[in-house]
Amino acid sequence: MSVAGFKAAAVAAGLRYKNRLDVGLIVADEAATVAGVFTLNRVAAAPVVWSKETVARRRARAILVNAGQANACTGAEGLAAAKRSAQAVARSIGCSEEDVLLASTGVIGQALNIEGLEACMPALAAGLSPDNLPRVVEAMMTTDTRPKLVRREGTIQGRPFTVVGMAKGSGMICPNMATMLSFVLTDAAVDADLLQAMLGGAVDKTFNCVTVDGDTSTNDCVFVLASGQAGNSMLTSTDDPSDRPAFEAALTDVLAELAAMIAADGEGATKFVRVRVMGAVDDGQAKTAALTVANSPLVKTAWFGQDANWGRIMGALGRSGAEFDPETVDIWMDDTPLVHNGRDAGREAEAAAVLRHPEFLVKIDLQNGPGQAEVMTCDFSLDYVKINADYRS
Amino acid sequence: MSVAGFKAAAVAAGLRYKNRLDVGLIVADEAATVAGVFTLNRVAAAPVVWSKETVARRRARAILVNAGQANACTGAEGLAAAKRSAQAVARSIGCSEEDVLLASTGVIGQALNIEGLEACMPALAAGLSPDNLPRVVEAMMTTDTRPKLVRREGTIQGRPFTVVGMAKGSGMICPNMATMLSFVLTDAAVDADLLQAMLGGAVDKTFNCVTVDGDTSTNDCVFVLASGQAGNSMLTSTDDPSDRPAFEAALTDVLAELAAMIAADGEGATKFVRVRVMGAVDDGQAKTAALTVANSPLVKTAWFGQDANWGRIMGALGRSGAEFDPETVDIWMDDTPLVHNGRDAGREAEAAAVLRHPEFLVKIDLQNGPGQAEVMTCDFSLDYVKINADYRS
Repeated sequence: MSVAGFKAAAVAAGLRYKNRLDVGLIVADEAATVAGVFTLNRVAAAPVVWSKETVARRRARAILVNAGQANACTGAEGLAAAKRSAQAVARSIGCSEEDVLLASTGVIGQALNIEGLEACMPALAAGLSPDNLPRVVEAMMTTDTRPKLVRREGTIQGRPFTVVGMAKGSGMICPNMATMLSFVLTDAAVDADLLQAMLGGAVDKTFNCVTVDGDTSTNDCVFVLASGQAGNSMLTSTDDPSDRPAFEAALTDVLAELAAMIAADGEGATKFVRVRVMGAVDDGQAKTAALTVANSPLVKTAWFGQDANWGRIMGALGRSGAEFDPETVDIWMDDTPLVHNGRDAGREAEAAAVLRHPEFLVKIDLQNGPGQAEVMTCDFSLDYVKINADYRS
Repeated sequence: MSVAGFKAAAVAAGLRYKNRLDVGLIVADEAATVAGVFTLNRVAAAPVVWSKETVARRRARAILVNAGQANACTGAEGLAAAKRSAQAVARSIGCSEEDVLLASTGVIGQALNIEGLEACMPALAAGLSPDNLPRVVEAMMTTDTRPKLVRREGTIQGRPFTVVGMAKGSGMICPNMATMLSFVLTDAAVDADLLQAMLGGAVDKTFNCVTVDGDTSTNDCVFVLASGQAGNSMLTSTDDPSDRPAFEAALTDVLAELAAMIAADGEGATKFVRVRVMGAVDDGQAKTAALTVANSPLVKTAWFGQDANWGRIMGALGRSGAEFDPETVDIWMDDTPLVHNGRDAGREAEAAAVLRHPEFLVKIDLQNGPGQAEVMTCDFSLDYVKINADYRS
């Protein structure tokens, strides 16, 4: 899976994990336009601080990513280590350090093993190839059980283009960018301002609708790099808007699929669940209600237990802050009515059968307005506790 | 453990559970002054709707409590069943139905077994005795592993008085009254308005500082009944305020001890944890920060795993909304420094040793103002998931 204008490489540098890929590098043949979205967590990791400045300059040549050490809560030393790692990349591929994006995931508070990173740089540079994106995806995994890599194609002005997205993330996932890294590469030519606007909109509809445990991280970021190799004339905010939908749809699709993959790969998850709220006063209240249900430990453990315990859903809705009359709430599991007008719909056995599926939709109608939202999440299993109690991720 | 002016009884009515006490009745010899605090959940159970009206009339003769069926999300039938249960009590003890407080805990959406309740009323009335409060506590337990009953004494105007409090609650516990019932009885003479004001203040400092899982319930309530049998002249809001502190202190102490018992009995809990935040901009931000840490599944599973993973605490603080500079955060486990100025304090092994204790304090100083708050919580264990996946509480 490759994208014109980009090469990649990954190595097992042994920074923290042993015998697995843990450092990845993506390099654009020429400076690409770039857009980025970052964690809203007040405790932002050093690579986030660094990369925000690169994104602000609207162009980038490379992304360096490592797994194992988050380089968060590492103070001035962490910032210095980030800068040194960007310099190492710059030297290896011949670009300015300002054009290097950085992303780290792993344990907070651990200093980056900068010597290890510098030492692996020659091997990384030597390994660059258009076909190595899957290796970068492997290198950025922590508790992920599956690599997450997706591709979409389209045409702009009659020219075919490709969008490839990759992501890591499985716990500490909540809207507003939780331990999640995602890199999207395209050969379409898109101006940085327009790319940023499209990315912001697409993230709101996709990654910001995923929640695993309500926790957000210090290191999240999504980068989009556009090489322009597809040969279309540069899309900009002021151009003919009819050229945009094909690209925006491909970008949003890629992020949506990655978001679903992240929710399905929630730590210890046995169920992938969509929670859709309709009939709220507005979309904001719908999203608040859906997230409160999706983050409720009592609701999530009932899903794990395959128990159609709708009282816990009603309880979560009631404390969400969304306005509604409890006597007009309808709830379905897929298409099976579970609650009608706030009361048991008498089909609990059928609803429980839906819960035995690995994937289902919890549909809630508050019958109080036009607001809608859908979020993606997973159940809360014994393995979630085991993973997070036994393993320092 | 008894309080002058009150009798109690409990029976095994088999409403939902078998072979255990599940219905309790507390009766004041004469109408008592009453105060109450109720769930803020928009989905309020029928007994909550009923009891709010009784509390608004400022007097009560009886509390009827049942475990197993929450009588929440039961619509008009649920309200009718609540009324019938109050009428049954009124007939049995000879009072107005308006003077009966109701409390239910258990499965949401299940209609109250009103015939069963009515059938057990003669046995309840026949069993009334000053010494049966411990039996009522047993009757209101659901997933609680321990009965929660405490007593304080004091003097007002030279006359001794007693305050006895009881509570149930172990999961679905979050500030603003989560599945928690608490009844407090006193023989002090206290006017209903003053009692209500004191209760509101005491609940804010105690029950509203407990969180187990962030979930709140449809059925929470705290009632205080004052029989006046202690013989002091009635305390009122306009009287000499010097008489109040002794009573207010006893009331607050009782609620504080019950609150700690509830946090320690969190479903599946292996650790009782206090999270204290200092140095916040104001007390509100301190409480928000403390609750975000206390409710974080990643932090709670790390406690269960006895892992001094302070990065997760920093992550939770960072997303809490509290304002602070990550570079000035200090964190201690009991008295062992874990983080100093946002960086590892180099004492992690000692801090991990603290986590092996069944009870510890996580102390956080944001160094950004005078705001403080302390909340009580517990860890998140494999048993929490088992209890809530396997058992419909």
